[in-house]
Amino acid sequence: MAGPDRVALKHGAGGRAMRALIEDVFLPLGGPVDGVGLSAMDDGAALRVGDQWLVVTTDSHVVQPIFFPGGDIGRISVCGTVNDLAMMGATEPLGLTCAVVIEEGFPREALERIRDSMKRACEEAGVTIVTGDTKVMGKGEVDGIVLNTAGFALARRIVRDDGLRPGDRIIVTGTVGDHGMAVMTRRRDLQIEGDLRSDVAPLNGLVRAALQAGGEAVVAMKDPTRGGLASVLHEFAQKAKVGVVLDGPSVPVTHEVQAAAEMLGIDPLVVANEGKAVLGVRPEAVDRVLAALRAHPQGRRAAVVGTAVAERPGNVILDTGLGRRLLAESDGEPLPRIC
Amino acid sequence: MAGPDRVALKHGAGGRAMRALIEDVFLPLGGPVDGVGLSAMDDGAALRVGDQWLVVTTDSHVVQPIFFPGGDIGRISVCGTVNDLAMMGATEPLGLTCAVVIEEGFPREALERIRDSMKRACEEAGVTIVTGDTKVMGKGEVDGIVLNTAGFALARRIVRDDGLRPGDRIIVTGTVGDHGMAVMTRRRDLQIEGDLRSDVAPLNGLVRAALQAGGEAVVAMKDPTRGGLASVLHEFAQKAKVGVVLDGPSVPVTHEVQAAAEMLGIDPLVVANEGKAVLGVRPEAVDRVLAALRAHPQGRRAAVVGTAVAERPGNVILDTGLGRRLLAESDGEPLPRIC
Repeated sequence: MAGPDRVALKHGAGGRAMRALIEDVFLPLGGPVDGVGLSAMDDGAALRVGDQWLVVTTDSHVVQPIFFPGGDIGRISVCGTVNDLAMMGATEPLGLTCAVVIEEGFPREALERIRDSMKRACEEAGVTIVTGDTKVMGKGEVDGIVLNTAGFALARRIVRDDGLRPGDRIIVTGTVGDHGMAVMTRRRDLQIEGDLRSDVAPLNGLVRAALQAGGEAVVAMKDPTRGGLASVLHEFAQKAKVGVVLDGPSVPVTHEVQAAAEMLGIDPLVVANEGKAVLGVRPEAVDRVLAALRAHPQGRRAAVVGTAVAERPGNVILDTGLGRRLLAESDGEPLPRIC
Repeated sequence: MAGPDRVALKHGAGGRAMRALIEDVFLPLGGPVDGVGLSAMDDGAALRVGDQWLVVTTDSHVVQPIFFPGGDIGRISVCGTVNDLAMMGATEPLGLTCAVVIEEGFPREALERIRDSMKRACEEAGVTIVTGDTKVMGKGEVDGIVLNTAGFALARRIVRDDGLRPGDRIIVTGTVGDHGMAVMTRRRDLQIEGDLRSDVAPLNGLVRAALQAGGEAVVAMKDPTRGGLASVLHEFAQKAKVGVVLDGPSVPVTHEVQAAAEMLGIDPLVVANEGKAVLGVRPEAVDRVLAALRAHPQGRRAAVVGTAVAERPGNVILDTGLGRRLLAESDGEPLPRIC
């Protein structure tokens, strides 16, 4: 079952192994496009349509358990797709598609809960599901439900993930690790003091506020889902060929996530988020972008957490407050089916 | 496991049960759109963008076996999505998204075969995959691979599936039942004389030819996938509130499909196709549309197979050549995972 000739769990985990699989197997599927295509490996694609960009993105969701503290597979599907559009600068989604694959015997009541949750998330994001597809697999052929959403939007300007240059600052819009830790503690039935919940939410409103404040000084955006903040910073660094210094103590983390991280022995920096964005911002615009984020209910704990540097291009340097060391990129987060 | 409170295989089979599930559970997800949205239950959605339509569609594929005579899950994904766009009149796809869910342990070599097959189908259709997503589920959590493709296109004019009026003729672009029978005989390891292969192919070129010939006289289109020709005719009849008389002897069927149908006891009329279209055409344009179809390599066996009538609105009347009877709509085709 193992071995280089077979797909392993780490190939879906958002780290180096996944990127290698995609590069080896799937990139040849792409072709030349007038805009941002598959080879960019960005959050989505962007195609020229007249004087605008048509931005599209897709995500299948397999999160387990289907219902978790703070959300469920329906909410995560809508938010994940809305957020991928937003990360490309497309904060006014035109619509989503929704394709479900359901296991025979799946309770209709659970399906209706998921539907209601999708509906609410759509309302929060100001988007509509415009078309869908339904498949059923036999008992034991799929574990419960797999949900795919694709999204599309028009935008005047897009934001990529490769725009950093030395001196730019890195902002994270809030606490990290909440989603992954909430799912994992629920899965393992761990008891954590306090309220450990997924942060899953549509971010297009928050991103719109940041873009209004920062304009073209917002030069990179990505949501730290699988692989967490660490993975996003590695992508920023590798794509822009800069180093990124991460100021560890300034990364916002809740007490609950810290407690879970210690119990599980997992660094919150590599854990998935579903309601946070990471922004690369030109230094002169940092203050106004940060102020705009903090004025938004979803951005109150936004913080500057790092800086792009000319040294060590392609690498992330963690400044722990006591010293500096290279932050290794995970090969594959130890968390299957986190989204 | 059974019972009205749980999802059954028939809910994914393209017949009445599936439509009821979608209407009960999923339609509330939709909302008002400027164009064709979820409530239309058409092949896709169509939204106004300036003076054009943005047409979008999505399909998840779960076909089993993954490789079958004439195609595989990769080819069917690309073709299914290209064809859904074409059925709305959008024959120039802008791009596709591709999201894979893979079972741990899946052979990389099979993944590469699927990739190559998608690539070839994309070339035939003149389309590019522009963005994707990769998830991995644990061994035993999904049976092999689930593939989702969503597609999008711009079109000046769209074709719906509700445009029939009494006197309109029904054209099918070729033989029916090939895909479903090929998959089913492979699944059951039946030996059929001759070459029984899936018809899976992108139809946008063929449909373009028909629309160039017929223009606005082409008033309804749909591809007869799950549920087959019978299901499409029921949808045409119900949406347009007309009766449809199907002239049984004029429906093209290969000898191989006929033989398989007899062995399996399944009517080719209810069996899935993946490379055929059903068109509703105003009577004055029938000859030129038929000629255009037959001049195309994919339409050589195109035939007029029926007529819309004022009697029995919402029903399909099968004329067997010996007499007439109502053609019942299947509750759910007895063929799980046919696409």
